[in-house]
Amino acid sequence: MKHTLILWAVFLFVWGTGQAARAMDVKKIAPSFWWAGMKHSELQILLYGDGLASSDVTVSGEGVYLEEVVKQENPNYLLLYVDLSEAKAQTFHIQLKNGKKELQIPYELKARTRRGEDVKGFTSEDVLYLIMPDRFSNGNPENDVVKDMRETKLDRTDSFARHGGDLQGISNHLDYIADLGVTAIWLNPTQENDMEGGSYHGYAITDYYQIDRRFGSNEDFRDMVDKAHEKGLKVVMDMIFNHCGSENYLFKDKPSKEWFNFHSNYVQTSFKTASVMDIHASEYEKKIATDGWFTSVMPDFNQRNRHVARYLIQSSIWWIEYAGINGIRQDTHPYADFDFMSQWCKEVLEEYPYFNIVGETWLNSNVLVAYWQKDSKLAAPLNSNLPTVMDFPLQALMNQAFDEETGEWGGGLYKLYDYQTQDLVYANPMNLLIFLDNHDTSRFTRTDELAQNLKRYKQALVFLLTTRGIPQIYYGTEILMTGDKGKGDGDLRKDFLGGWPGDVRNCFEASGRTSLENEAFEFTRRLLNWRKGNSVIGKGTLKHYSICQGVYVYQREFNGKSVVVMMNGTDSPKELDLTPYREILPTDKARDVLTGKQVNLGGKLALEGRENLVLEF
Amino acid sequence: MKHTLILWAVFLFVWGTGQAARAMDVKKIAPSFWWAGMKHSELQILLYGDGLASSDVTVSGEGVYLEEVVKQENPNYLLLYVDLSEAKAQTFHIQLKNGKKELQIPYELKARTRRGEDVKGFTSEDVLYLIMPDRFSNGNPENDVVKDMRETKLDRTDSFARHGGDLQGISNHLDYIADLGVTAIWLNPTQENDMEGGSYHGYAITDYYQIDRRFGSNEDFRDMVDKAHEKGLKVVMDMIFNHCGSENYLFKDKPSKEWFNFHSNYVQTSFKTASVMDIHASEYEKKIATDGWFTSVMPDFNQRNRHVARYLIQSSIWWIEYAGINGIRQDTHPYADFDFMSQWCKEVLEEYPYFNIVGETWLNSNVLVAYWQKDSKLAAPLNSNLPTVMDFPLQALMNQAFDEETGEWGGGLYKLYDYQTQDLVYANPMNLLIFLDNHDTSRFTRTDELAQNLKRYKQALVFLLTTRGIPQIYYGTEILMTGDKGKGDGDLRKDFLGGWPGDVRNCFEASGRTSLENEAFEFTRRLLNWRKGNSVIGKGTLKHYSICQGVYVYQREFNGKSVVVMMNGTDSPKELDLTPYREILPTDKARDVLTGKQVNLGGKLALEGRENLVLEF
Repeated sequence: MKHTLILWAVFLFVWGTGQAARAMDVKKIAPSFWWAGMKHSELQILLYGDGLASSDVTVSGEGVYLEEVVKQENPNYLLLYVDLSEAKAQTFHIQLKNGKKELQIPYELKARTRRGEDVKGFTSEDVLYLIMPDRFSNGNPENDVVKDMRETKLDRTDSFARHGGDLQGISNHLDYIADLGVTAIWLNPTQENDMEGGSYHGYAITDYYQIDRRFGSNEDFRDMVDKAHEKGLKVVMDMIFNHCGSENYLFKDKPSKEWFNFHSNYVQTSFKTASVMDIHASEYEKKIATDGWFTSVMPDFNQRNRHVARYLIQSSIWWIEYAGINGIRQDTHPYADFDFMSQWCKEVLEEYPYFNIVGETWLNSNVLVAYWQKDSKLAAPLNSNLPTVMDFPLQALMNQAFDEETGEWGGGLYKLYDYQTQDLVYANPMNLLIFLDNHDTSRFTRTDELAQNLKRYKQALVFLLTTRGIPQIYYGTEILMTGDKGKGDGDLRKDFLGGWPGDVRNCFEASGRTSLENEAFEFTRRLLNWRKGNSVIGKGTLKHYSICQGVYVYQREFNGKSVVVMMNGTDSPKELDLTPYREILPTDKARDVLTGKQVNLGGKLALEGRENLVLEF
Repeated sequence: MKHTLILWAVFLFVWGTGQAARAMDVKKIAPSFWWAGMKHSELQILLYGDGLASSDVTVSGEGVYLEEVVKQENPNYLLLYVDLSEAKAQTFHIQLKNGKKELQIPYELKARTRRGEDVKGFTSEDVLYLIMPDRFSNGNPENDVVKDMRETKLDRTDSFARHGGDLQGISNHLDYIADLGVTAIWLNPTQENDMEGGSYHGYAITDYYQIDRRFGSNEDFRDMVDKAHEKGLKVVMDMIFNHCGSENYLFKDKPSKEWFNFHSNYVQTSFKTASVMDIHASEYEKKIATDGWFTSVMPDFNQRNRHVARYLIQSSIWWIEYAGINGIRQDTHPYADFDFMSQWCKEVLEEYPYFNIVGETWLNSNVLVAYWQKDSKLAAPLNSNLPTVMDFPLQALMNQAFDEETGEWGGGLYKLYDYQTQDLVYANPMNLLIFLDNHDTSRFTRTDELAQNLKRYKQALVFLLTTRGIPQIYYGTEILMTGDKGKGDGDLRKDFLGGWPGDVRNCFEASGRTSLENEAFEFTRRLLNWRKGNSVIGKGTLKHYSICQGVYVYQREFNGKSVVVMMNGTDSPKELDLTPYREILPTDKARDVLTGKQVNLGGKLALEGRENLVLEF
C-alpha cells in the first residue's frame, strides 16, 4: 500500500537553475487535487515540509490567481490561497524558490463529474444502517495489519484492538444490507487513524484526506460508494471537526499554536456542552466545554482560526466531490465552534443543495437539541444551518417505553406521546435522526434476556419505523445483537458473526441465524421493505392521540393516503373503543401490514397485550 | 349581608307613562358601575331580567353613546355596548321601554382614583404567599354561614366543607405575613361560589362581580387590599375565565348556547392541554382538551363568543380598578381559548402597563410552559401576552432534588442545574413563578417524616429564594405544614392552627409553635427579610456552574453587587476546590447571610453534608 508515497514522488520535480539544487522536502499537500467550477472559488492549499516557509511562491495556470501566501509560526508550513473563479480543469503549477533551491509542483484541477444539485442527501424517506467498519466484516485479510502504521496488533479477542473489518467486507455484504430494506449506510469514521492504540473506532483522525489503509484505499472507498449507489443505498460518512488524533502531523508539528485550543497543555472537556446554549453559563464552563480536549490523545481544533476552518471545510467538500457520498454525520457537533460549524454547513449546502448533514447533538433535552437544528427559533438570530440533529432524548425514552406499562399520564408509550407533543420546539421534526442505539450507547437489546423478548423488540421497531424522523438502525439490531455500555464500549461493537472467515456461524444467512434471530430479522425486513419508497411514512404528516386504555394511536398521511398505527403499550388484552379515532379511520376495513390480515374497525377493536397494528386502507 | 339586594333597589325606578306601569324585573347589571377615562372606551353592560329583551333601549348621558344593543336567544338578556370615549365621571341613565312598562336605570361612571401606571404588579423582587381563604383564619364567625346561599354546612372536620376562614381572618394576620418577609399575598378565588357543595375552594364562580359573602363583602375585600398595601404587601387575585360554577346565572339561564362549549351536554376535558401546542394533535384531542368541561359542575365558557370575551375581560378590569390589586393569577390558563387569553392580557396591560398576570400553566415540560409566556419565540407569530407563567417542571424537580444525592451527571441538585441550562427556551426566565407546592399539589413537606428533615427544608428554601424567578410560598410552609395529595385535596388545605378561636395552639406566635417549627420559621423569615428589597436577588443576572463534587454553585449579580450561593447536594462533607469559581469570587472573604459568619475563600472550602452558603462580599 505504497501509493501515498508514490503520489508525492510523481508530483515533485527538481530543476537545476544554473547549478543543481537540492530537493525540497514536501511531505504533504492538502488537498492533493481539487476541481474546477466549484461555487466556492477560493482554494486553500496547505504545503508541509521542512523549512518550506522561507520559499518564495508563484503560481502559473490559466485563470489561477495566487491571492495570499500565509506563513505560520512553524517554518514547515506554507498556506496558499488561490482564486479559481476563472479556472477551468487543468494541471497548473506551484513554484517554490528558496535561494538556489527550486521546486515545481503540478496541481490538478479536475473536471467535475456531477453537478452539486445531483448529490442527493438522505432524508426521512431513508433508513440508515450504522456500521462500525472494523467490526462488520473482514473482506480483505491482507490489509489487516499495515506494517508502517503505529498500531499493528490484530486481536479479535481484545475489544480495544483492531479486528480486521474493512471496506471490502462492507462491499461484500451490500446485498444483505439492501435486502434488509434499509436505504443508506452510515460508516463510523474511515479516515486514517494512525494512532498507537484504540485506532479501530476511527475518531482520532491523523490524515483528513486519507482512508485508513487497514480499511482500504481512497479508491476502495469511492468504489464501495459507487457499488452502494448501484444497489440503491446512500452512503453517509462520519467526520470529526472538533478534534483530531494526537499523531496528526497538524498537531505533532502544528503550523502555529493558534491551530489548537489549550495548545500547550491538555485540558479535558467537561462534556457539558449545554453550556454553549445556557444563558446562565459562566465563562469558565463555556470555555472548558468547547475548548477542552475530548481525550488526552484528541487535541481540540481552534476553528476560530480561519486557516483551520478552511482546512476542515475543504476536507469535507473534497470527500463529497471525490466519492459522491450522500451525507455527513458530524461527530461531537456542539463541542466545536458554533459560528464555524454554521459556516461549514452553509457552504456545504451552497455547493450541494440536496445534501444532508446530521450532527451528533448528544444533549439530554429537546430544547438543547432543537437549538442546533437549522432555522431554530430558539437560536435565532443565530442559525446552525445544520439540517438534521440526533434525537437523543427520544432515544433515552424509547429505551424505557417498551419495558413499562403504559398509563394515561405516565409510563411506557405515554413517554413517546408526551415527548412528541413538544415537537413544536423543533424547526423540522421530520429531520430528526431517530434511533434505538448506536456505537456509543447500550444496545436496545442490552442483555440476552431482553433479546428474548420479541414483543418488546417488535413494538420498538414498529414505532421507530413509522413515526416522524429519519430512522437509524445499528448493525446487528436486526439479529438481536446485545451490548451493554456497563461492560465497556467493546461490548457495543462486537463483530457481526459470519463477517470473518471461519466464524462459528454466519448471521448474514438465514441458515446461520437462530429461529429467534430469524423472527426478528424477518419482522424488521418486512417493515423496512414496506417503508422503502412509501411516501406516507417518508413524507407524511403525523397526527397522534393521547393514550387511551394504554394504547397509542397515530396516523401518517400524505397526499390523501394514510397509515394508522396502533400499539398496545400494556401486557393486557384491550377492547379498544375507536370513537376518538374516527377522523383517521376512513373505512371500517383495513389491512395490517405486519400480518397481511384484514382488520375490522366497525366496532370495538380487540388487541392482545403488546400487539401492534400498522393499518393501510 | 343584604347590600346586594339593596343595590338593585336603589338603582331601579319605575315611571308611570300616562298610567302606572308594572315594575320591570332587572336581576343583574354587570358591571354595576364603571369608570370614566379608561383606555378601552367601550363598555358592555349586561342586563338580566325576565323578558328584558323585548324592551327598547335608550341611553342618556353626556358623551355616552349607545353603539349597539344585542339581544340573545334568551329573552332575559340585553347586552348594551356604549362608547365612553368622550364621557366624564357622571351618573347617566339607561331607559328601557316595553309597551307601557318603562324603567330608568341610573348608571354610575366613577372618577378614577389612580392612574393605570400607578398600579404596580408583582415582580421577581417579590415573594408571594398563597392563602386558601377558607383555611387560613376565621376573623368573622358571623359570616360563616349565609342562610340564603346553597351550601350552609360549616364543619372543620370535613375537608370538603367550609371551615369559616375569611377576609377578616387574613386582615387580622397581615402583620404576621409582613413580618415573615413575603411581599405579596395571592388568595385562592374569593368571588362568589354559591354552589351546593365544595364551594370552599372558590373555583366555581357564580358571580364574577361579587365577593363570596362567607368571606366578606366587596368593600371588605377592597379594605383588606388597602390594609395590605399599607403594610407593604401586594395582593394577587385568583380568577377563572375557563369555566364557571354551574349555578352561575349565566349558565343556568344562559344568554345563548353560544356562551358555553358543549352547552347541552357535559363533556369532560381530557386535561391534555399539551394538545393546544402539539403540532401533531388531532382535532378531536384539541377540542376535548379546551372545550371539555373542567368538571361536571364547571361548564366551559366559549370565549370565542365576543360577548363572553368582553364580559370576562371587563370583570378583571373592574377588580383592578375597584380594589387596586397588583396581579391576577389566572386559573387553568391553557384550557381557555388562546386568542382570547392573549387579547385579555393585552388589554389589561394596555390599561395597567406595570401590572402582572400569572397563568396556571400546568404542563410538564419547559417547552410547553414557555409557549405561554409573552413574546415566546416558540409561539411566534402568536403571542400569549401573558407576562408570567408557572414553572411546574421546576416544581416537580425541586420535589426530587433535595431528597437525592447529587452527581455530576444526574440526581439531586444536578436536576436543578440541568433544567436551568435550558432557560433559553423562556422569553423571560425572571418572570417564572417558582414554587415548591401549592393548593393542588402535595406539600413540599408531604409527610411528618419529611417535615423532620430541616436540612432538606433549608436547602429547598435557599434555592427557591435565591434562584431566578418569582418565588411563591404556600401558607404554612414556614411552619412545616404537611399535606399529601394521595390523601385528597383536603389534606393540602388544612387549617392554619391558631386561625380559629379555641385552636389547640396558635402557630401565628412563636409560643404556639414547636421548636422544630420555630427553627423552620426563623430560617425562612431571615432569608425572606434579607431578600426583601435586595436587587441582587430581585433583579440580578444568574450565572451558574455545573455540579462539581456534588456542590451546586451560582451567582446573582446586579449593578456590580453580587451574591454567591453554594449548596452541598450530598450528605457527605466536602473540601471544595474553588478554582472554577474564581471569576465570581471578588474577594477571599465573604459573609454568609444564613449564619452571619465570615467565610474564608482563600483555599479549599469545607462544606458539611447538605450545608448551604449564601455569600455576600
